[in-house]
Amino acid sequence: MIPTPYLLFLGDAPDQLAAKVAQGIKDWRPENAVGQMRLEGCKADLGLTDMSLEDAKAAGAKTLVIGVANRGGVISETWKKVLIEAIEAGFDIASGLHNLLRDEADLVAASMAHGTSLHDVRVPGIDYPIANGKKRSGKRVLAVGTDCSVGKMYTGLAIDAEMRARGMKSDFRATGQTGILITGQGVPLDAVIADFMAGAVEYISPDNDADHWDVIEGQGSLFHVSYSGVTLALIHGGQPDAIILSHEPTRQHMRGLPDYAIPSLEALRDMCMPLAKVANPDCKVVGISVNTAAMSDDEANAYLTEVEERMGLPAVDPFRHGAGRLVDALAAI
Amino acid sequence: MIPTPYLLFLGDAPDQLAAKVAQGIKDWRPENAVGQMRLEGCKADLGLTDMSLEDAKAAGAKTLVIGVANRGGVISETWKKVLIEAIEAGFDIASGLHNLLRDEADLVAASMAHGTSLHDVRVPGIDYPIANGKKRSGKRVLAVGTDCSVGKMYTGLAIDAEMRARGMKSDFRATGQTGILITGQGVPLDAVIADFMAGAVEYISPDNDADHWDVIEGQGSLFHVSYSGVTLALIHGGQPDAIILSHEPTRQHMRGLPDYAIPSLEALRDMCMPLAKVANPDCKVVGISVNTAAMSDDEANAYLTEVEERMGLPAVDPFRHGAGRLVDALAAI
Repeated sequence: MIPTPYLLFLGDAPDQLAAKVAQGIKDWRPENAVGQMRLEGCKADLGLTDMSLEDAKAAGAKTLVIGVANRGGVISETWKKVLIEAIEAGFDIASGLHNLLRDEADLVAASMAHGTSLHDVRVPGIDYPIANGKKRSGKRVLAVGTDCSVGKMYTGLAIDAEMRARGMKSDFRATGQTGILITGQGVPLDAVIADFMAGAVEYISPDNDADHWDVIEGQGSLFHVSYSGVTLALIHGGQPDAIILSHEPTRQHMRGLPDYAIPSLEALRDMCMPLAKVANPDCKVVGISVNTAAMSDDEANAYLTEVEERMGLPAVDPFRHGAGRLVDALAAI
Repeated sequence: MIPTPYLLFLGDAPDQLAAKVAQGIKDWRPENAVGQMRLEGCKADLGLTDMSLEDAKAAGAKTLVIGVANRGGVISETWKKVLIEAIEAGFDIASGLHNLLRDEADLVAASMAHGTSLHDVRVPGIDYPIANGKKRSGKRVLAVGTDCSVGKMYTGLAIDAEMRARGMKSDFRATGQTGILITGQGVPLDAVIADFMAGAVEYISPDNDADHWDVIEGQGSLFHVSYSGVTLALIHGGQPDAIILSHEPTRQHMRGLPDYAIPSLEALRDMCMPLAKVANPDCKVVGISVNTAAMSDDEANAYLTEVEERMGLPAVDPFRHGAGRLVDALAAI
């Protein structure tokens, strides 16, 4: 678990998109983001107060989060200087970079000397158990996609935010590095050893109050041959009561697989539900989330209306229209 | 890749069952087993010539394989003495034990000093790629089970042996530790990091002659919530042309999961095939292998006849009746 709140380090981000992890934290957990720190040449701006390490410390920040991708997979000397100063000031450091903080000898030495922690969220922090398949109390919802990167994390975060706004009991259960940095905890499921994937999902969504929702972050797709095993571990470890089908209608083929066609929402439903019912016979599809970013307002509305009629389920773009109708459907089961 | 042939180390095996890995090597790759080595008190006997290290060396053995489970997860001093003598004599050591050879400082020091290798087959030896899903040449068959441990490895080894006996081109592609020790190569799929599971399966079953069969060892079950993700990675990474359904008809519930019922063969077929067709639209179920070990001859025959009529596919116990009819069906596609 990463101590919150955070100082968001944007480094020398070449553009706004490079700071998308920091943007996600600010959008979804603004209470975790006390300020931003930018180096010379930084082209990103979250609209937060620019802070020195001292300012951030005074404002209560406990962890400096690297909220930006680095160039060329190297932690530069410029960054290193700031990170070591942060450690010396008592901050933990959290990172989702491919190159790990723990592989940098000077960062390790500084953090040991000052009793702080380095959080590499790409690396599982604990030994997960093998899944036991026992029915757990509380409710769980999972987004499954026709493809990778169609908006499953966003859908989950939007559902969680809407549930909290309504006073419902909800926790977003992160299963990827960005989600972990946003919420401060979770499992980097793609980095877990095969035998323990489903057990890791059980671990992060334990027994809970009967009216509590775990909103489990989806990964991969049953139709994406590179990652489908991870998706099935989420379906079987998560034993969801409710499934949201997620789709991006303008994509031409499966991400990174030019020979693989995107399945229909009906094909996704028919593939997913028999698998989901193995772990939870009462599992239902309750709604559809569509990423309409590449469509005009009119196109998006027409598409959503058509899908809704065809599938007989609420179909929304939670970014464009909010997750209210998905939460209505979840609250009804 | 483990250098063959082997000297099979049975240690102080308390009974024949404890030496089942060695038995598997002797049964399926007798040409790899030049002899056995037993310590005082050993209760297992493979019927091979008992050999000293010198005898085995003279007979051409290159690797000492630990073909027996150890007690209490500790490599005893008695074993250690033999293993170090073997290393000094120039043997590689191969092991599927939970406790790793590489974690024993004296074995590591000896193997470095003598230029030999320690093969821990529970640990992936290479960095596997992410699966690319590209169609590969050659043919592939995979056994998928209603449950774990229903005879999928045995089915694959029997098919491979029958194909070789007929002069067909075939390779058994091991995906578990016993299979790896038997054939000298493969991937311990349950120990691979999630993102690389399907890529590992692609890696071990590459492009091949059009009339060559990869007989890929199955793992887990789509209906076993603890391991189903591994099974799906095999189906999608293996892109099989042919599926064998495997079943053990007397089991009362899923292995280790008392609340989960065993699915029917029909349910397995209907769950598996839409998933398999994602990676290979031409994939077919060609036969059924049944583990009838717990049945009398009459019961087994009656059961197989009933299944065969019901499913319209050849149904055999390859241990009892050989894999001939399964290979007939494979040769016909």
